[in-house]
Amino acid sequence: MKLSAFSELARRTSEPPISWLMKLTLDHPHLISLAAGFTDHESLPVSEARQLLEEILGSAKGGRQALQYGSTAGDPELRKLTSQRLQKLDACADGGPYSPERVLITHGSQQLLYLVTECLCDAGDLVLVEDPTYFVYLGIAQSRGVRCRGIPIEGDGLNLRELDRTLAGLKKSGDLKRLKLLYCVTYYQNPSGITTSFEKKAAALEILRNYERAAGHPIYLLEDAAYRELRFAGEETPSALRAGRFSERVIYTGTYSKPFATGARVGFGVLPRPLFTMLHRLKGNHDFGTSNLLQQLVLRALASCFYSHHLAELQTRYSLKAAVMVKALREHLPDVTWTEPRGGLYVWAKLPPAIRSGVKSKLFKAALGRDVLYVPGQLCYCDDPSRRKPDHEMRLSFGGASEAEMREGIARLGDVVKQFDRRAK
Amino acid sequence: MKLSAFSELARRTSEPPISWLMKLTLDHPHLISLAAGFTDHESLPVSEARQLLEEILGSAKGGRQALQYGSTAGDPELRKLTSQRLQKLDACADGGPYSPERVLITHGSQQLLYLVTECLCDAGDLVLVEDPTYFVYLGIAQSRGVRCRGIPIEGDGLNLRELDRTLAGLKKSGDLKRLKLLYCVTYYQNPSGITTSFEKKAAALEILRNYERAAGHPIYLLEDAAYRELRFAGEETPSALRAGRFSERVIYTGTYSKPFATGARVGFGVLPRPLFTMLHRLKGNHDFGTSNLLQQLVLRALASCFYSHHLAELQTRYSLKAAVMVKALREHLPDVTWTEPRGGLYVWAKLPPAIRSGVKSKLFKAALGRDVLYVPGQLCYCDDPSRRKPDHEMRLSFGGASEAEMREGIARLGDVVKQFDRRAK
Repeated sequence: MKLSAFSELARRTSEPPISWLMKLTLDHPHLISLAAGFTDHESLPVSEARQLLEEILGSAKGGRQALQYGSTAGDPELRKLTSQRLQKLDACADGGPYSPERVLITHGSQQLLYLVTECLCDAGDLVLVEDPTYFVYLGIAQSRGVRCRGIPIEGDGLNLRELDRTLAGLKKSGDLKRLKLLYCVTYYQNPSGITTSFEKKAAALEILRNYERAAGHPIYLLEDAAYRELRFAGEETPSALRAGRFSERVIYTGTYSKPFATGARVGFGVLPRPLFTMLHRLKGNHDFGTSNLLQQLVLRALASCFYSHHLAELQTRYSLKAAVMVKALREHLPDVTWTEPRGGLYVWAKLPPAIRSGVKSKLFKAALGRDVLYVPGQLCYCDDPSRRKPDHEMRLSFGGASEAEMREGIARLGDVVKQFDRRAK
Repeated sequence: MKLSAFSELARRTSEPPISWLMKLTLDHPHLISLAAGFTDHESLPVSEARQLLEEILGSAKGGRQALQYGSTAGDPELRKLTSQRLQKLDACADGGPYSPERVLITHGSQQLLYLVTECLCDAGDLVLVEDPTYFVYLGIAQSRGVRCRGIPIEGDGLNLRELDRTLAGLKKSGDLKRLKLLYCVTYYQNPSGITTSFEKKAAALEILRNYERAAGHPIYLLEDAAYRELRFAGEETPSALRAGRFSERVIYTGTYSKPFATGARVGFGVLPRPLFTMLHRLKGNHDFGTSNLLQQLVLRALASCFYSHHLAELQTRYSLKAAVMVKALREHLPDVTWTEPRGGLYVWAKLPPAIRSGVKSKLFKAALGRDVLYVPGQLCYCDDPSRRKPDHEMRLSFGGASEAEMREGIARLGDVVKQFDRRAK
């Protein structure tokens, strides 16, 4: 029998790069991974989690609650704390868009991204993404048959002129009716490290609104704030939820995995009401609720001072690690440029354009041969027929690797790049 | 703007009954829920989980591992233990179908059911389900636009003659090309309590195989063994993985949530190789891996004797609770029939056919008015145009309710039923 029983979705789904990147990392004990978005291993809150779980399971009542099923939307107290926390971060008095009723707790924010896309997009529909963007989101789009268009980004986020130009083009071609959302990683973007200013988010929402009539339906801004709390320089930037009447078009997603513990997969979404209703249903079918034990752990961390203390430590740690990485880059990769990181986990390193860094490039293989792994920049660009994918960038993470590993890894990367640099000249 | 931006999937997805049933239960503190598939609250392994987590987090190395991301497929050690455990339960020397390489760890077995259906079924495709079946699976099918046909069950599982007749009918109508799988809850079935004999599973696989040529693709048996370990009477029944050459068509799914702690959502699938490859990709997009902390907890429970000790306790407890429920049914609902439970969490109570028990029935409302909730049997039947849904059954769970609650709840249910019984006569 030649034909498989696979669905159309399965037949089109390719191997997500994150799977083989994670596997490469875990399978090669000597590999220096500058690729993985793992959090700093040394700083994982082992003693904090131990104490919190001891408190939770130390009482029969709390213990049983944590070990029992909860409800599909998530623990009511965690939803409330999440709502309050966001309102505080945004310094916003108007609680409406932040209502706990709009908060859905998920198994990591990745699950929220999946549910949103499933809820809004049919195969053939369109989403706008940043150029470059979070490559795992591109895997969701690829699997679901969703077409992407890339919007270039600048130092403070989206190039608004390009956004408008792309929307006008879609209107002209008739494709606007298939456009469902604009996906932006707004804080210390994965991969570029750039933060979108509040003004740009508000302006983008207004631009999108201008095209809704022609689209015939709402066009949402999906604000992925996964790295928001990992800020170590600069001021707090309000989320798009503060954008007044436009907040009805904002889907905000965040996570407690990266700021606390990646092994406890707890993320969340703050959703416009019609989307909440629908995602709640979809979540019911997917797994009918996020692990209560994980939720209780995160809830206690938030309610005590453990979460904020740990976060402050993490911020200091990542600030130092980012500095180590930047120093090593200056020393070993003099021809590379990057944006100074102010938060998050990544440095986006641009090689001279003549040097290719892609999955099949000699550079990537040579680096692997020296036991160094990076994320090829190429992977972070969507398949947009209107432009060629840049292929001379690397996403380097200062999250998982130790300081010594970063120094060594970047020194080796420097050696490898020098060979190609000479050849390119 | 009238049109929503929802996908076709979202537009067709109705509220899953589990969401409102769970919500009703959690929102009514005085409600006696004989509906929820919650595990026995008193017996949740609080001290065991406390000790195991203390061991995990008591060492910096193990603690960090548990709090870090893992790989998409799941912890290698947990995959191995799962494989060994199944092989032992099945008393099978041929390890092939049980290979750890085929084990995928998921956030509860519900997620596995979702991924399998997403992997195999397009909207308009067909699955065969038992009549009655696990109603949450029907939610997945409904949402994904998958049509269902119900196969009646008997005391030892599927009515094979009806299975064959249905397949022949689909062949004749041309619909066989859309048939992807047969879904069976094979142990202490949710909702009927019935266990499918090994012989019937093997025979069903052979029957399915006979129709594959006409279908043009493999037709899988999705064996949902969620309640397998909650056995308190009778012999162990081997899984369909033992069915020799037919095991290539078996998708086996189990869970550690119900036998250990429902708050720790860890389930798994054992998959034919092409399906493993594909589900691994889909899982990468859904959430790129199950919480490592939860996996380490389950792994330690399995590797120590905590899991088996706890399970033995649970089995004794559920055996007693089932007896309490059955005694109360005999006393208060003399006109009701059921199959004696030998495992699992449910008694499937059949009222006299004249008494309706559905969501909109007076009986359901009257029971709710007396603060008693059951799952209307109607919800457990798929939308199969070839037969009318029976509407005189109730799924009663002896999992979540205490013995006193069961006695009181069933006494109240008896009062309510008596009123309708008199009217029906």
